[in-house]
Amino acid sequence: MDPNQEKRTDVNELGEFGLIDHLTKKFPLLNESSLKGIGDDAAIIENGDMLTVVSTDMLIEGIHFDMMYTPLKHLGYKAVVVNVSDIYAMNATPKQITVSLAFSNRFSVEALEELYAGIELACERYGVDLVGGDTTSSPKGLSMSITAIGQVAKGKQVYRNTANVGDLFCVTGDLGAAYLGLQILEREKQVYLAAPGVKPDLGEQSYLVGRQLKPEARKDMIVAFDQAGLLPTSMIDISDGLASELFHICSQSGVGAFVEESGVPIHPDTEVQAIDFKIDPITCALSGGEDYELLFTIRPEDVDKVKYMPGIYIMGEVVPKKDGIKLHTKGGNIHPITAQGWKHF
Amino acid sequence: MDPNQEKRTDVNELGEFGLIDHLTKKFPLLNESSLKGIGDDAAIIENGDMLTVVSTDMLIEGIHFDMMYTPLKHLGYKAVVVNVSDIYAMNATPKQITVSLAFSNRFSVEALEELYAGIELACERYGVDLVGGDTTSSPKGLSMSITAIGQVAKGKQVYRNTANVGDLFCVTGDLGAAYLGLQILEREKQVYLAAPGVKPDLGEQSYLVGRQLKPEARKDMIVAFDQAGLLPTSMIDISDGLASELFHICSQSGVGAFVEESGVPIHPDTEVQAIDFKIDPITCALSGGEDYELLFTIRPEDVDKVKYMPGIYIMGEVVPKKDGIKLHTKGGNIHPITAQGWKHF
Repeated sequence: MDPNQEKRTDVNELGEFGLIDHLTKKFPLLNESSLKGIGDDAAIIENGDMLTVVSTDMLIEGIHFDMMYTPLKHLGYKAVVVNVSDIYAMNATPKQITVSLAFSNRFSVEALEELYAGIELACERYGVDLVGGDTTSSPKGLSMSITAIGQVAKGKQVYRNTANVGDLFCVTGDLGAAYLGLQILEREKQVYLAAPGVKPDLGEQSYLVGRQLKPEARKDMIVAFDQAGLLPTSMIDISDGLASELFHICSQSGVGAFVEESGVPIHPDTEVQAIDFKIDPITCALSGGEDYELLFTIRPEDVDKVKYMPGIYIMGEVVPKKDGIKLHTKGGNIHPITAQGWKHF
Repeated sequence: MDPNQEKRTDVNELGEFGLIDHLTKKFPLLNESSLKGIGDDAAIIENGDMLTVVSTDMLIEGIHFDMMYTPLKHLGYKAVVVNVSDIYAMNATPKQITVSLAFSNRFSVEALEELYAGIELACERYGVDLVGGDTTSSPKGLSMSITAIGQVAKGKQVYRNTANVGDLFCVTGDLGAAYLGLQILEREKQVYLAAPGVKPDLGEQSYLVGRQLKPEARKDMIVAFDQAGLLPTSMIDISDGLASELFHICSQSGVGAFVEESGVPIHPDTEVQAIDFKIDPITCALSGGEDYELLFTIRPEDVDKVKYMPGIYIMGEVVPKKDGIKLHTKGGNIHPITAQGWKHF
């Protein structure tokens, strides 16, 4: 009955991905319709000619968001975006979501209305239907769990484990901004806690704060790929930082990566703010997380399809596994990239 | 930023179903594939000839379970059962689940292994694949959110809102036992807290405690219906007590119910224990919850299909809405049935 009884291995010893592997390795897939299980952005289920794509995410107050600086409407919006982003990362179109909510008696009906107003806005923006969920109380704080369900024509789904040596690494937008937005919000929170009369001034950093509080999923890119007749060879959404996602693609595909620092898109505001915080901007891009851009690989012969696609950046190449995952810095040095992974525990 | 700012309506003023209605009424279904949204045991999505059925549930420590008397393996098992039960209640077959987990650093890898051992056992028992999820930390306690995905041939799905006057109400097993099992566990917890040396003695009440800690979903009944060529006219799983589920079917179908107390199946152990606790056994059946039996209606001409089906109890009739929802007691009186609904807030 005591969860701490007998042998006790701390979860930190395994890390997020080690823990998931450890806990789920004994689960075989029994149903023929289970095309893809754990290990990608989403699961894939076969349904005749179309595939159903399912992704789920949990957001916990005090871990994933801080009510001090997260308006509930933004939280609802972002919770949906995070999930549909996983569906787009499979080259699929999200169609439905379910929303489960646990909240303490601190939350009023009006507060929940704000949250749902954000969910509604995201449903409209991404064309998804809210089809179910669960609502319950919680002894403390707010927890949300969202499941997104999407569709993709058979053969058009894109996995993480299918990058090939010689393919090019691309990304759909600038990286590192959401992380700095969070740092600004944390700083202003500390200022406010020290002197509650002082109003936070976020005006100059609206781009960075906006990337943190109201990210968008790259629906437009999935549409653009389809119009250009481009099928990426692998794809993942950037939720934990570029380094972590490069590791996922490389380890699952059995390949390495050679990334040009000069090819990694970083917004001018990110550059300035990073220097202000005394962080190297490339560190924000590599380890920052929450950008929700798409990292994908294409065959070299498809380069003309992306070359003039607005917002696509080619930043490196898929290399043999033995060559590792490396960054060619602007200064001309070659450094191995290390993934920080999960920092919640 | 303060969730309590301005006008504040307490969630209790609306109740569970009122709150869900209130928050979700503005969400239209945009996609043609969204056949059924909020308001049934599960959502239904069209995929060619087959329908995809999706249900989701959230379980919060301190609200839905107490770690003092819930072994983690049982918790994992039950969490899956609760969800697949919703899929069966649509006359569908569960095929996949996703499991999201948030837990504090109180939980070791070994504790999580126990939880997943229970999930695994249920996956085997019900033939479902674990295809995804999310794992994160929580400032306090354990929260789980499970989504089940199932399949049903088009035309075979059974809703809540399709009962007709003249149909018969049936149930797949005895009611009230899980509620009494919980009361026994709560009593033994108090005994233990008062005198930690005293070992709980649950031997005599193993049936009741088993119904609480390790419920089963009625997969067997869905198979039996199919073999007998029976398509219920409406169906729901009994998670909140018979009264609450009768109300759901009746209000959504626009009908009333006339239930014979003598037709409501109650296990002998439930009878004895209820009297020991000075509760009327029928109250346990009506308001107890967590039995996970199926409440369904059939056309009168189908009565021969269920008459000799083991474990099916015919307990009443669908009547016009104006006649209300009533119980014909063993003593010969007629009482209106009232639904307690949700007690978590």
